[in-house]
Amino acid sequence: MNHRKKIIVIGGSAAGPKAAAKARRLDPYAEITIIQKDSGLSMASCGYPYYLSGRIKDRKSLLTTAYGIVRDPDFFESTKGILAVIETEVSEIDRKNHNITCNHRKTGEMTRLDYDKLIIATGADAKMPPVPGNTLSGISTLHSLSDVDYLKNAHARGNIKQAVVIGGGLIGIETCEALRQSGIQVTVVEMLPQLLAFLDWEIAKLVENHVRNKAVKVITNLAVSEFVGNGKLQAVKLNDGTILPCELAVVAVGVSPNTKLARNAKLFIGKLGGIEVNEYMQTSDPDIYAIGDCVEVHHRITGDKTLAPFGDLANLQGRVAGENAALGNCVTFPGTIQTGICKVFDFSAGSTGLSEVRAKAAGFNIVSVITSGPDKPVFMSGKPLVTKMVADADSGKVMGVQCVGWGDVSKQISQAAMAIQGNLTVEDLSNADLPYAPPFALPIDNLIAASHILGNKMKGRLDSISAVEVKTRLDNGSDPFILDIRERNEYEMMRLGIGEKQIPFGEVRNRLDELPPDKDREIICYCGISLRAYETSLLLKANGWKHAGVMEGGIIAWPFDREK
Amino acid sequence: MNHRKKIIVIGGSAAGPKAAAKARRLDPYAEITIIQKDSGLSMASCGYPYYLSGRIKDRKSLLTTAYGIVRDPDFFESTKGILAVIETEVSEIDRKNHNITCNHRKTGEMTRLDYDKLIIATGADAKMPPVPGNTLSGISTLHSLSDVDYLKNAHARGNIKQAVVIGGGLIGIETCEALRQSGIQVTVVEMLPQLLAFLDWEIAKLVENHVRNKAVKVITNLAVSEFVGNGKLQAVKLNDGTILPCELAVVAVGVSPNTKLARNAKLFIGKLGGIEVNEYMQTSDPDIYAIGDCVEVHHRITGDKTLAPFGDLANLQGRVAGENAALGNCVTFPGTIQTGICKVFDFSAGSTGLSEVRAKAAGFNIVSVITSGPDKPVFMSGKPLVTKMVADADSGKVMGVQCVGWGDVSKQISQAAMAIQGNLTVEDLSNADLPYAPPFALPIDNLIAASHILGNKMKGRLDSISAVEVKTRLDNGSDPFILDIRERNEYEMMRLGIGEKQIPFGEVRNRLDELPPDKDREIICYCGISLRAYETSLLLKANGWKHAGVMEGGIIAWPFDREK
Repeated sequence: MNHRKKIIVIGGSAAGPKAAAKARRLDPYAEITIIQKDSGLSMASCGYPYYLSGRIKDRKSLLTTAYGIVRDPDFFESTKGILAVIETEVSEIDRKNHNITCNHRKTGEMTRLDYDKLIIATGADAKMPPVPGNTLSGISTLHSLSDVDYLKNAHARGNIKQAVVIGGGLIGIETCEALRQSGIQVTVVEMLPQLLAFLDWEIAKLVENHVRNKAVKVITNLAVSEFVGNGKLQAVKLNDGTILPCELAVVAVGVSPNTKLARNAKLFIGKLGGIEVNEYMQTSDPDIYAIGDCVEVHHRITGDKTLAPFGDLANLQGRVAGENAALGNCVTFPGTIQTGICKVFDFSAGSTGLSEVRAKAAGFNIVSVITSGPDKPVFMSGKPLVTKMVADADSGKVMGVQCVGWGDVSKQISQAAMAIQGNLTVEDLSNADLPYAPPFALPIDNLIAASHILGNKMKGRLDSISAVEVKTRLDNGSDPFILDIRERNEYEMMRLGIGEKQIPFGEVRNRLDELPPDKDREIICYCGISLRAYETSLLLKANGWKHAGVMEGGIIAWPFDREK
Repeated sequence: MNHRKKIIVIGGSAAGPKAAAKARRLDPYAEITIIQKDSGLSMASCGYPYYLSGRIKDRKSLLTTAYGIVRDPDFFESTKGILAVIETEVSEIDRKNHNITCNHRKTGEMTRLDYDKLIIATGADAKMPPVPGNTLSGISTLHSLSDVDYLKNAHARGNIKQAVVIGGGLIGIETCEALRQSGIQVTVVEMLPQLLAFLDWEIAKLVENHVRNKAVKVITNLAVSEFVGNGKLQAVKLNDGTILPCELAVVAVGVSPNTKLARNAKLFIGKLGGIEVNEYMQTSDPDIYAIGDCVEVHHRITGDKTLAPFGDLANLQGRVAGENAALGNCVTFPGTIQTGICKVFDFSAGSTGLSEVRAKAAGFNIVSVITSGPDKPVFMSGKPLVTKMVADADSGKVMGVQCVGWGDVSKQISQAAMAIQGNLTVEDLSNADLPYAPPFALPIDNLIAASHILGNKMKGRLDSISAVEVKTRLDNGSDPFILDIRERNEYEMMRLGIGEKQIPFGEVRNRLDELPPDKDREIICYCGISLRAYETSLLLKANGWKHAGVMEGGIIAWPFDREK
C-alpha cells in the first residue's frame, strides 16, 4: 500500500505533541502534522509558577528539551519527521470530507488539510468571572506563556506592591506562593469555604493556616463582584462590599474545556462540558480522537465522567491516542483516580482517590481517619505530616488518601495512588512491605500507621472523634472532659486552650483520681499525634470510664485557632 | 473469668516491644512481661550508622520516644503497664509446663516464669568470619549498642586512620559511609562479585562506582583469610594474599537468626536457619509465636521461605503476634516482597520484589529493562535515577523494581512496592495516575516511563541491548556500529570511548550517509538516557537498517570505565 496515512493533531502543548510523537514511532511513513495556535510548542506550562517566582531562571528552559534544544518546528521536523505548523488556528473540521481548515494568525492565509485520523488536543481556557471591569489592565490569568510574560514584566517594573489572587485551587496557591516570594503582599480570595477543593475541609484548613503564616491574607466564602479601576486595575471588590486595593489581580478560578471546534463539528459533548471519548480516547467520530484538558475522563472509582486537566494525564492520553490513530484501536486509557499535589511554600498538599465529602456524594458508605506523624524518625530530622484515609466501610477498600504537611507528601501520595489502583484494602496496607531506612522513612510508614488506626476504628477498638466534632460539641455547650497527655514542655510550646487538663502520659496511670468521678462522662484524650492518647483511652476504659475517646490526629491536626 | 492471661515476650528490641504493646491494647488485664538480655529497650538500631557518622548527635535519641522520654522499664510500666525485665537472659523454655527460666546477667539470680502465650523475638546475631585473629582488639560488628559505643569511642580517640569494612551489604555500605564521613580512609571488601546483593550486577556496579568516587577503595570477589595483629588489629589479609593495613575492621557479613532457645525447645527450624512460623506468626507450638529477625518469612512472590531481617517487618510481625497472642489467632502476616533501601553518600539504592537474577533462579520467565531519567524536570533541579524493571513475560505482572541514583529513590521504590503488592502489570503502570507537579515529579514519572519502555520491548517495538551485552560483544570482537546521538557539548563532558561515532540527534536524519552502507550491520544507538536513541533506532529501521538497536538506560547506566 502506497498511501501514507495522514494524521493531524490540533494542539501543540502537552497531549498533542505526545500523540504525534507516539504515532510517528509506530508508523514511520505516516504524514503527521501538528497545528498549533501559539508560537510555542510543548511548553512546560506546569512550570510557569516557578518561572514567575524566579526558581526557574531561564525562560528558555520552559521551551527546551532536557538536553537544551528548543522544541520549535525545526526540532520536530529534524528529530521526528513531524510537521509542526505554528501560529495557525483551525477554524473548521469537515468530518464528511475528512479535512480541516486552518488560518495563519498573522498572514491570514487559509489552508485546507486532509486527514485520515484527526486528534483534537485543544486544551482548556482559563475562566474569567463575568463581572464589571474584567478587561482592565492589571488582570491576568496564569494559563499561557504570554500570561507569564505579562506577569513577569509587570513584576519587573516594580510597581506591584499588592496583588489579589482570585481562586484558591492548585494554580491559585502556586501563584500566591510565586508572588509572595517575589515580595508582593498577596490576598487569596476563594468563593468556596476552603482552599484546594480536592481536600476535605479540615485538611484544607491546615493548608490555609500555613498560607496565612506566610503573611498571606486568605478570604474564603466570598467572590469577586467587580474589578475597580480606570483603565488600570486599582482594587478588587468582593460581594460583601470589601474593597481590596491592588495593582494586580491573577484570576485562577479554573479552566473549561476548549470544545468549540468539536461542538461545531457536532462531536458529542459530555455533561461537564468536555468532549466525550471512549476508552480508546476516540470521540463519537471513529476517525477523530480527543485528548488532554478538552475531554471528559472516566473516573476509575466512581465510574462517572470527570474533568481532570492534569499534565501527566494529558501525556498518557496522548500516548494512547497516538498509538490508536497509527495502528487502529489497540490500547486503552483506564481513566483517573484524581491524583494531585501542590507545593505550598515549605508545605505540600496532595490527594489521591476520593475525599470523604466526594465519596459520600458518590453514594459510598465510608469510614475515615485522620492521623499525624513525622515522615522520618525525629532523630533524622523527620518533618510532620497529617494524613486522612478514606475507605469503603463494607469491603475495606481504600478509596482515598489526603496528606499535607512539611514532610514528604509526594511519596505518601504516590504509594497511596498505587495502592488504590491495586485495589488494596486497609488490611492489605496494614502489612505493606515498604522501603525502610532511617534517612527515608519511619519503621512504620505514615500510610501503614493510618491503615492500622483506621483498621482499629473499623474493628471498634478505637473510639475516635475528629477535631471538627470536638469543636462542634464544645460550641454546642456539651461538656466533655478534655485530656492533653503530652509532656509539660510540649504543653508550654503549643496548646489548644479549650479547657483541657494536662497530665503527662506516663503519670496518667497514677493520677486517675484527677479524672472525673462520673464514669459516664465523656473523656477526650489527645497528644501530639494521638498515639499516646490511644493508649491512654484504653487505660481509662480498663478503669471503668465508658466513653474515653481519642481526638484524631492530635494537636497538629487541629484546624482551629489555638491559645498558643 | 478471673485468670489474667500471662504473655511473655523474649526480646526487647523492635518486634518484642511492639508485640507486647499491641497485646496490652487488646487485653488490658493480661500480665505482660518482656525479658530483655541487654539494658536498652526498643533501641533504634537502624539509626546506629547515623549516630556513628555524627548525623545523630545525641546517643539518648536512640533510646527515647519521639517526645523525649527514655524507653526504660519505668516507661513500660507507667505508660503501658508492661513489666520489662532487663539484663536478663532466658536459658530455657519448658513447653510442657508452660514456663521459662531466666537468669539475671549480673546477679546470676534465676527465675522461673509461667506463660499462657510466649512470643520469641530473639533477633539475629552478627556473623563473624571463622578466620584466625577474629578476636583481636580493633574488630567489631555494628549490631548492638555496645558495638556502636565501641566504634564511637575508638574513633573519638583519634587513632583510627584506616578502616576495613568487611561485607558490602546494607549495613556494610552504611558503615562505610559513616566512617568515610568521619575522615577515615575506608576499604570495603566483599566476597561476592558485587555490592548490595539484592541488586542485579550492573545496577550494583553503579553503586560501586559511586562509592569509589567518594575515595573509598572497593574490593570484590575476595574474602578475609586472616585478621593480622598482636593483641591489636594491624591489618586484614585477603584470600589472594593482599594485606590491608588498618586500625579498625568492621564486620558486616550478615546476620543469622538467633534460634538457640527455640532449637533447645524443639520448635521447628526452617532450612534457612530461622524459626518456622505460619501466617499467624505461630511456631510449631500453638502457644508460642516467633517474630522478627529470628524467623523465616513467606516470600509473597516466590512462595518460598526467606530471611528478611528488616526493622519495619519486625514491627508489623510484632503487631500480628501481639494480637494473636492476646485474642487467639485472628490476624495474619502475608509475608515480604523484600523491599529495601540504602543511603550511599548522596546516592540512594533501593529494590522491591525480585531482581532479574533472583527471578530467573526462582524459575520465572521474565523480561526486563533498564531506563534512566531525572526524578523531576531538569529546570527544577531534577537529579538522575537509573531504574530496572523486571516483569513476568507471560502475564506482564511486575515482579521487581530496582532504582539507584542521586534522585528520589525512596518514592520510586515505595510506589513500585505498592504496585507489586497490588499485582499490577506493566500495562497497568503505563497509565498510572500519580501525583504530578514540577517540584515533585516528571509529567511521566520514572516508573511509568520504565513501564512504557518495557511495554515497547514486550511488544517487539524496541530492540534494546543492555550495557553489559554491548561490552560483552565488543570484548568478543564483534563489530557493531556504535552511535552516540547526544549533542556535541554532552559528548565533550562525558563519553564512553568504545569506538562510537557522535552525530547529534537532530542531524541524524540528514547524515544517514555517514552510517554503514551495509544495512545488515548492527547499529547500537545511545544518548543520555536512551530516549533520543529510541527514536533514532526507529528512524534507522525506517531507512532500511535491519538491526538498529538501543543501549538500555543510555550513558548514565553504563557500569564500566569510560574514556571521560
